[in-house]
Amino acid sequence: MDLSELKEIFDERLSTVDSIREQHSSDESWHIPENLPDAVIFPNNSEEVSLIIKFANDRGIPIIPFGAGTSLEGHVHAVNGGITINTMNMNKILNINKDDMNCVVQPGVTRNDLNEFLKDTGLFFPVDPGANATLGGMCATRASGTNTVRYGTIREQVMGLEVVMPNGKIIKTGTKARKSAAGYDLTHLMLGSEGTLGVITEITMKLHGRPEAISAAICPFSEIEEAVNSVIEAIQVGLPLSRIELLDEIQIMAINRHEKMELEEKPTLFVEIQGSALGVREQIEIFGEIAETNNVLKFDWSDQPETINKLWSARHRAYYAALALDPGKKGFTTDVCVPISRLTECILETKKDLEESEILAPLVGHVGDGNFHLIMLLDPDNNEEVVKAKKFNEKLIDRALEMGGTSTGEHGIGLGKKDCLIKEQGLSIEFMKKIKMAFDPKNIMNPGKIF
Amino acid sequence: MDLSELKEIFDERLSTVDSIREQHSSDESWHIPENLPDAVIFPNNSEEVSLIIKFANDRGIPIIPFGAGTSLEGHVHAVNGGITINTMNMNKILNINKDDMNCVVQPGVTRNDLNEFLKDTGLFFPVDPGANATLGGMCATRASGTNTVRYGTIREQVMGLEVVMPNGKIIKTGTKARKSAAGYDLTHLMLGSEGTLGVITEITMKLHGRPEAISAAICPFSEIEEAVNSVIEAIQVGLPLSRIELLDEIQIMAINRHEKMELEEKPTLFVEIQGSALGVREQIEIFGEIAETNNVLKFDWSDQPETINKLWSARHRAYYAALALDPGKKGFTTDVCVPISRLTECILETKKDLEESEILAPLVGHVGDGNFHLIMLLDPDNNEEVVKAKKFNEKLIDRALEMGGTSTGEHGIGLGKKDCLIKEQGLSIEFMKKIKMAFDPKNIMNPGKIF
Repeated sequence: MDLSELKEIFDERLSTVDSIREQHSSDESWHIPENLPDAVIFPNNSEEVSLIIKFANDRGIPIIPFGAGTSLEGHVHAVNGGITINTMNMNKILNINKDDMNCVVQPGVTRNDLNEFLKDTGLFFPVDPGANATLGGMCATRASGTNTVRYGTIREQVMGLEVVMPNGKIIKTGTKARKSAAGYDLTHLMLGSEGTLGVITEITMKLHGRPEAISAAICPFSEIEEAVNSVIEAIQVGLPLSRIELLDEIQIMAINRHEKMELEEKPTLFVEIQGSALGVREQIEIFGEIAETNNVLKFDWSDQPETINKLWSARHRAYYAALALDPGKKGFTTDVCVPISRLTECILETKKDLEESEILAPLVGHVGDGNFHLIMLLDPDNNEEVVKAKKFNEKLIDRALEMGGTSTGEHGIGLGKKDCLIKEQGLSIEFMKKIKMAFDPKNIMNPGKIF
Repeated sequence: MDLSELKEIFDERLSTVDSIREQHSSDESWHIPENLPDAVIFPNNSEEVSLIIKFANDRGIPIIPFGAGTSLEGHVHAVNGGITINTMNMNKILNINKDDMNCVVQPGVTRNDLNEFLKDTGLFFPVDPGANATLGGMCATRASGTNTVRYGTIREQVMGLEVVMPNGKIIKTGTKARKSAAGYDLTHLMLGSEGTLGVITEITMKLHGRPEAISAAICPFSEIEEAVNSVIEAIQVGLPLSRIELLDEIQIMAINRHEKMELEEKPTLFVEIQGSALGVREQIEIFGEIAETNNVLKFDWSDQPETINKLWSARHRAYYAALALDPGKKGFTTDVCVPISRLTECILETKKDLEESEILAPLVGHVGDGNFHLIMLLDPDNNEEVVKAKKFNEKLIDRALEMGGTSTGEHGIGLGKKDCLIKEQGLSIEFMKKIKMAFDPKNIMNPGKIF
């Protein structure tokens, strides 16, 4: 691959060094890279991204957009080689508009960077996957997190995008108004398109006012069923939960070890309610009553920011805590999401399968959304383990689909769930592919992903 | 056009009678139909819709989907003749799932039908354009209404769709889970596509719990600026308004006449807050204080359902009240939406233009979203009046776009705003057209709209 024309422009910002290519060859998941990108380029702006894509499109060279590399379905793997575009230099917060409660950022800004920047503004950005992902990557994978039960996923935050399209043209989607009925919704088409339709180079997003008061509670139960039923009841009576996360006894044990905490090693809910001081106290008590009727073992709650922050940072590191249970192994993460009324059934059947399979897999989930993960620890080079995990996941996904759910609540399709997409979306995939073909006839944009 | 093959199947449900074709030739707006559909068919189910579309696609015959015919930009006009598909027989509520707070409906169900059906369930559907539109039509035009400031537009409600595509294939988009990251977001692509990409034949949507308490207030001001500033301040301090609507003195006068009410004929806010009994009282008082500092003339509030319902049903009939100011005239409705911080400036400059132009045009708006309408009364056959209204609207739209807003907050592009879309969306239209071409190469679906 002759990249000399690009090398002249990007100089040291274009690397073909092995170590750099290797660093960009995989994400945080169990997927083994079968290839390396031929080069990694670190553009500074949209025009440079456009220039790279035009170059690649003329020559049919694959382009792989790369944020923090924290995805979990092999989204950044250079399946057919090509050029990886790392957005780390495009990390500027371009505008914070306090009056309209929105912001404009470049794609390389991480969610923590943004919230750090917003610290003294009274505003915050709610979408919080476990990893400190880039906002570009979060848009590309339609990410969510623990706050989704209240604030929605990234889909509900993004008002508009700038995208460099597969032909190199730079387009703007959406507007800065809170709603618009003008033409096809390209913003939402791009969110979750996993880099297969273009490279996101600028994001306009909503921000939210920090709540006056926050309370959080830790609620261990003897039985996972009691925990899940508490969630369902709380959602159904309309309690304004801002977070409600389930961690099973194995995940709690992993967190105790990794975070040096001393939580009771039982199926546990981490719950948070935000609002006015009075409202929060009233509502956390109502949640306490619901948990009591489901035999909660204790109900520890706190309104101390330090205690609450410690809780959520432990939760955010759940994936790494799980991996640390068996050092050297990788995580094969399931991600089904089902209607909330079917959640208990889905979790119980799945736990039963898990016991039978003897797979070590902590369970952690955004149960307020009906979404939960099993982090199956395995050695990707051990075929038997991989086959077993795949089979387990397949059964879980069939169960979720039968319940009207989805194979992926928030991680996306990537390399790992292409078969599931066919099962789940059926005939509609024909029309997804028509869009892909129409936008990217040479299939240069992140080839091998989604389809 | 030889429709005998379809006539055999649909018999009396296929009409070529002049009066029926005329009834289906236009919507509620000023746009004059230049043509009639060749036939109107009333299918009973998705398979029949598919059959019609396959027939039409084979022969290159235009298809125009028709709900209640209440759109405002000529969306249902049979520009090139063809077959109008009226969904009135597809008016079944297929499922109400109380546990998951969602429903599945056919496209011919109207928003009032659905809420009537939900009356005793504790649930309701929030999206409420003025007209009693069908839910299929509301999806197709990405509708919103007075509740959007709290509940979002129809975009935030729809979880999945069944759509008959231009090649006759019936696809399902989305899932019944609260979120999904599986593949391209065809659901949002279809919402707002105005019948140009397919016919929506089934809708899965979120429902919401009825609030414990509701209070509403009527707040007249001497100056429109004081009213708008109250809105901006209330939004910026994060008051959980469920509705906040501005009506200028002319619109209030129109409502007084049409609804036999005795409101003070001043720029007025209709405000509503929902929540717990305690919370609502606290918050309506905070709003009262904000209004006081902006010199509100009086602050009448009520928590009586009857009073509140009367207020909102008057608001919903604002368009018809405006039309009644000058019987025989039609409404040319503007629909800009701007960032909330620019709203006062946008409204003041627009009112100034209006005074200079001497156009009779009540102003009414969902100001919490930054969206407002002028209903310009005109005779569509009077070219001078039409040119004047178009010129006025063009200037207003340029102003909104310059402020980062949109030409259409909720009515859509249709026939009337095709030029605006080009100004607003620029290069991205190329990619909208690629989708249109890829899905509907013969351009049979609602031709002449959007592009």
